[in-house]
Amino acid sequence: MKLLKSRIASEGRVIGTNIVKVDAFLNHQIDIQLMNQIGKAFYDYFKHKHINKILTVEASGIAIAALAALHFDVPLVFAKKAQSVNLDGALYTSKVYSFTKKRSYDVIVEKKFLNAGDNILILDDFLAEGNACLGLIDIIEQSGATLSGIGIAIEKGFQRGGREIRARGYDLYSLAIIESMSEKSGVVFR
Amino acid sequence: MKLLKSRIASEGRVIGTNIVKVDAFLNHQIDIQLMNQIGKAFYDYFKHKHINKILTVEASGIAIAALAALHFDVPLVFAKKAQSVNLDGALYTSKVYSFTKKRSYDVIVEKKFLNAGDNILILDDFLAEGNACLGLIDIIEQSGATLSGIGIAIEKGFQRGGREIRARGYDLYSLAIIESMSEKSGVVFR
Repeated sequence: MKLLKSRIASEGRVIGTNIVKVDAFLNHQIDIQLMNQIGKAFYDYFKHKHINKILTVEASGIAIAALAALHFDVPLVFAKKAQSVNLDGALYTSKVYSFTKKRSYDVIVEKKFLNAGDNILILDDFLAEGNACLGLIDIIEQSGATLSGIGIAIEKGFQRGGREIRARGYDLYSLAIIESMSEKSGVVFR
Repeated sequence: MKLLKSRIASEGRVIGTNIVKVDAFLNHQIDIQLMNQIGKAFYDYFKHKHINKILTVEASGIAIAALAALHFDVPLVFAKKAQSVNLDGALYTSKVYSFTKKRSYDVIVEKKFLNAGDNILILDDFLAEGNACLGLIDIIEQSGATLSGIGIAIEKGFQRGGREIRARGYDLYSLAIIESMSEKSGVVFR
């Protein structure tokens, strides 16, 4: 997606060779028109897949999933991280290790919101090692629902997540795949 | 807002006299058409206030803020809870005690995303004791920005948050104010 790549190139801040901060427009401050275009790009790619629900994980996936949900006209469900006292009922959970936060957490979805007949699209802002996404896939498999596609705004192509998820045969569509980055030369897209 | 009240009445699950679970349509699974109507309701009420930025707090405020941002055509900023290793730069922080989670956390916004010239609308899903909202107000005051309004989907009118915020003179608009509730007789709106 040209628009997203140009925003990453012009406003992303590269730290080391592994982190690009896009908090000015994607995951702290959010440019809502860009987000709407991102939602539309996922709709254009996955619209023939009969998606009836979008699944993401809090917090930075929610805005992407919400804007996409508006284009698909389907509900979204966001998985929660760690158990809150206000979550009751039967739960699907999967343990996820976050390299960013250097700790493990559970992704949690109440069972009543994922069913065997559902046709799910996973959406998230970043894909790197893929652990959060694999946690969502695990939850979908537990529920018996069908996973019909995975949409990612920014994939770090030099980390293993995208390779592993494609190797499993899932239809993974990333709007911007970063091949490499450095503070000196910025971001190189695949 | 009639539509939201009818959804709370028909699908909200009251637990004790203090908790109403709206996770089937508002803050775990999200009905995107309802959310779009909520965003429009906030736009209709606050559209003359020259809002240039919407502020909320992760996670369940994000979808409301995103859909409203689309109607206002302004960016949103979501405050983070607790410090992540990926947050750098100068930060506004305010300490918040959560009665739901029974612990304190910091709400955090990078300084560059709130400026003295900004005209802010705070949006959130719930207002009860008001601590999260007071944390966001504190951050806006630190930044020198103007707080032009506060929009809440569901206010628990029997808790002190709404009273305290209105007593400070802020323009607080709640789409549904719950006067009382019980498992036996359900929700009574103000």
